[in-house]
Amino acid sequence: MDWKLWEQIANIHPLIHQITNVVTVNDCANITLACGASPVMADALEEAAEMAAASNAVVLNIGTLRQEQLEAMAQAGESANKRGVPVVLDPVGAGATRLRMEAVDRLLKRVRFSVIRGNASEIGTLCGQRSGRGVDADEDGLKSLLPAIRDLAKTLQTVVAVSGPVDYVTDGKREAYVENGTPLLTRVTGTGCMLTAVIGCCLGAGIDPFHAAILSLAAVGIAGEKAEASLSNREGIGTFRVRFFDEISRMNSDTLEQAGKVKLLEKPV
Amino acid sequence: MDWKLWEQIANIHPLIHQITNVVTVNDCANITLACGASPVMADALEEAAEMAAASNAVVLNIGTLRQEQLEAMAQAGESANKRGVPVVLDPVGAGATRLRMEAVDRLLKRVRFSVIRGNASEIGTLCGQRSGRGVDADEDGLKSLLPAIRDLAKTLQTVVAVSGPVDYVTDGKREAYVENGTPLLTRVTGTGCMLTAVIGCCLGAGIDPFHAAILSLAAVGIAGEKAEASLSNREGIGTFRVRFFDEISRMNSDTLEQAGKVKLLEKPV
Amino acid sequence: MDWKLWEQIANIHPLIHQITNVVTVNDCANITLACGASPVMADALEEAAEMAAASNAVVLNIGTLRQEQLEAMAQAGESANKRGVPVVLDPVGAGATRLRMEAVDRLLKRVRFSVIRGNASEIGTLCGQRSGRGVDADEDGLKSLLPAIRDLAKTLQTVVAVSGPVDYVTDGKREAYVENGTPLLTRVTGTGCMLTAVIGCCLGAGIDPFHAAILSLAAVGIAGEKAEASLSNREGIGTFRVRFFDEISRMNSDTLEQAGKVKLLEKPV
Repeated sequence: MDWKLWEQIANIHPLIHQITNVVTVNDCANITLACGASPVMADALEEAAEMAAASNAVVLNIGTLRQEQLEAMAQAGESANKRGVPVVLDPVGAGATRLRMEAVDRLLKRVRFSVIRGNASEIGTLCGQRSGRGVDADEDGLKSLLPAIRDLAKTLQTVVAVSGPVDYVTDGKREAYVENGTPLLTRVTGTGCMLTAVIGCCLGAGIDPFHAAILSLAAVGIAGEKAEASLSNREGIGTFRVRFFDEISRMNSDTLEQAGKVKLLEKPV
Repeated sequence: MDWKLWEQIANIHPLIHQITNVVTVNDCANITLACGASPVMADALEEAAEMAAASNAVVLNIGTLRQEQLEAMAQAGESANKRGVPVVLDPVGAGATRLRMEAVDRLLKRVRFSVIRGNASEIGTLCGQRSGRGVDADEDGLKSLLPAIRDLAKTLQTVVAVSGPVDYVTDGKREAYVENGTPLLTRVTGTGCMLTAVIGCCLGAGIDPFHAAILSLAAVGIAGEKAEASLSNREGIGTFRVRFFDEISRMNSDTLEQAGKVKLLEKPV
Repeated sequence: MDWKLWEQIANIHPLIHQITNVVTVNDCANITLACGASPVMADALEEAAEMAAASNAVVLNIGTLRQEQLEAMAQAGESANKRGVPVVLDPVGAGATRLRMEAVDRLLKRVRFSVIRGNASEIGTLCGQRSGRGVDADEDGLKSLLPAIRDLAKTLQTVVAVSGPVDYVTDGKREAYVENGTPLLTRVTGTGCMLTAVIGCCLGAGIDPFHAAILSLAAVGIAGEKAEASLSNREGIGTFRVRFFDEISRMNSDTLEQAGKVKLLEKPV
């Protein structure tokens, strides 16, 4: 694994256009800055395509949908595709309601994604296996899902990244497991959205989709581990969240090399 | 007071559907997680009713209204009522503009609430006594409002919780005063909204509305007190806010028992 | 420079009505409280004008535009103008898309602003010199822009405040440079929006536009300097952001007098 790739974000300082949800939009902008990239969060229909065309990567996140915003996402994605700007999708809560399933279908029909990042429940829904229960994921079913996930990656010619206790990344041929992270990351809202934003930063810095996903999963997981390790027993989730941002802003290739727990499999098992 | 009820949130891990304002939506999601529940913030008209039906409690907050969102709130509330899912209302800034008064009227006509939580100014407006001055409340008038508040609770068959220097809770018959808290809580945006979200967590965990309101007022007040006590003289409102989240995430029945200042009156005084 | 003016915010405790973007709306509300003022963030078309009329100052920020919100901004501005309530404009990303340029044009036609605050790229766009590149600014061109900025201030009869490595303020006749700040402020989202909110707090407290802009630039810059100086080498951007809020909440005229780096020029150079 070439951990030096991470440094490209700060060196290239890419502009990352994000159409995302109102819950975590501030966190996504801040994590983008913390990585060394520059965020722009423009979701108006009138400017989405124009902004996407001027960006180095586009992040689409369906966490809180409005019809107009969904069309803005599709147009931003198409505009990016036309110009070779990479696009990453976060299908938040994909299995939870019909609206979200239809939204994902519509985006997949109109936009080619370099990476799709979700939890096991969301990615399972994209594989045709709806599970429900809002945004939270049941991660037990990951193993049984693997063949379907590989098929999904092949069919859509994309990289699929499944975050969970152990993260999984595949482009349909190559595979990787990332074992960094802590359950505390699930106790803060937006860590999934932020992970997808970090993938956007990597893509915008010219890193290939497969390694962009792996790097991002490792970086976010390691930042979580370090933030947790720093907590005194009087501190809790508020301090954890602050230190998480501290650690992302201090992340570099040495830390990644030292702490990254990645298993790369060149062929499907 | 049975403080052990608090533990039910983490044990049951309820899903709390919240249609709320864009100012504090991130804080509300994070406080929900900090309590041990799971948030979903879906405000699109197309999915609000569906999401409410799949949730353990629904939180409606009119802090930043759009017409479409107001209709989503009404439909989410009706959907919850149909299935016995408890609903809590936060009538933010109810007295400040006509739009907000009409919004509250419309919601009260279509939805039955288990709890309504506001400051004295907002609850006074619901009692027909408009005071104005935006989101802030004048708390002096609480005493003179008590009879009207009890009537409101009886008429709407709901629990009314009035937060302020001393908090007041009534279901029209029983009453309680909660004396926890610190003025610093009014120096951070969203502490009222978060309080309402915590009531939603309690309701979603199966706690009855009267005790859900008392528990939440005590928990938020105690967390504020502890956060304030932890501040060095070089720290200010930013650190206070972080420690407040720390304390909520570490809250348990022992702390509540030790620090809770609740006076329960079984009959109206 | 009369630094005592700062204390007027906490003394008068003005109500600041803000129609702003979804990315930093929470930060803007919190900075307003930290300054000692009271925020209300009401962007619905039905109540914007009513709320503006009841406020002590209005802040308009085009960071994330919807058509309806733009009209709400115009109506809030007109309503404020009618009643002598000061209005401040933050033309976020003005040069980045056609939508934003049209939005600024429309607002400038309908509303008279006491202060317009942007970075060099945004203010350059208002001067007719479009530069592009999203929200970030290239600050090198400030010097060559100065004559155009003075003309802009004169034409619009407003105070123009340009934030950057060195900040610049002019009303077309008087000028000031503010040299407080740190590059870390550009690594946190919303510091520009928050700066504009602080200007709103000063205006709402009755401070004249020229000194309101200078005071705010100094206060935000000094808070950034102090927050940076407090960081240990294990801390990063997350802690910086928390301490920034700490410092704003502890800001007073003594600190401003001691640390403020302001050069006032009564005549254009």
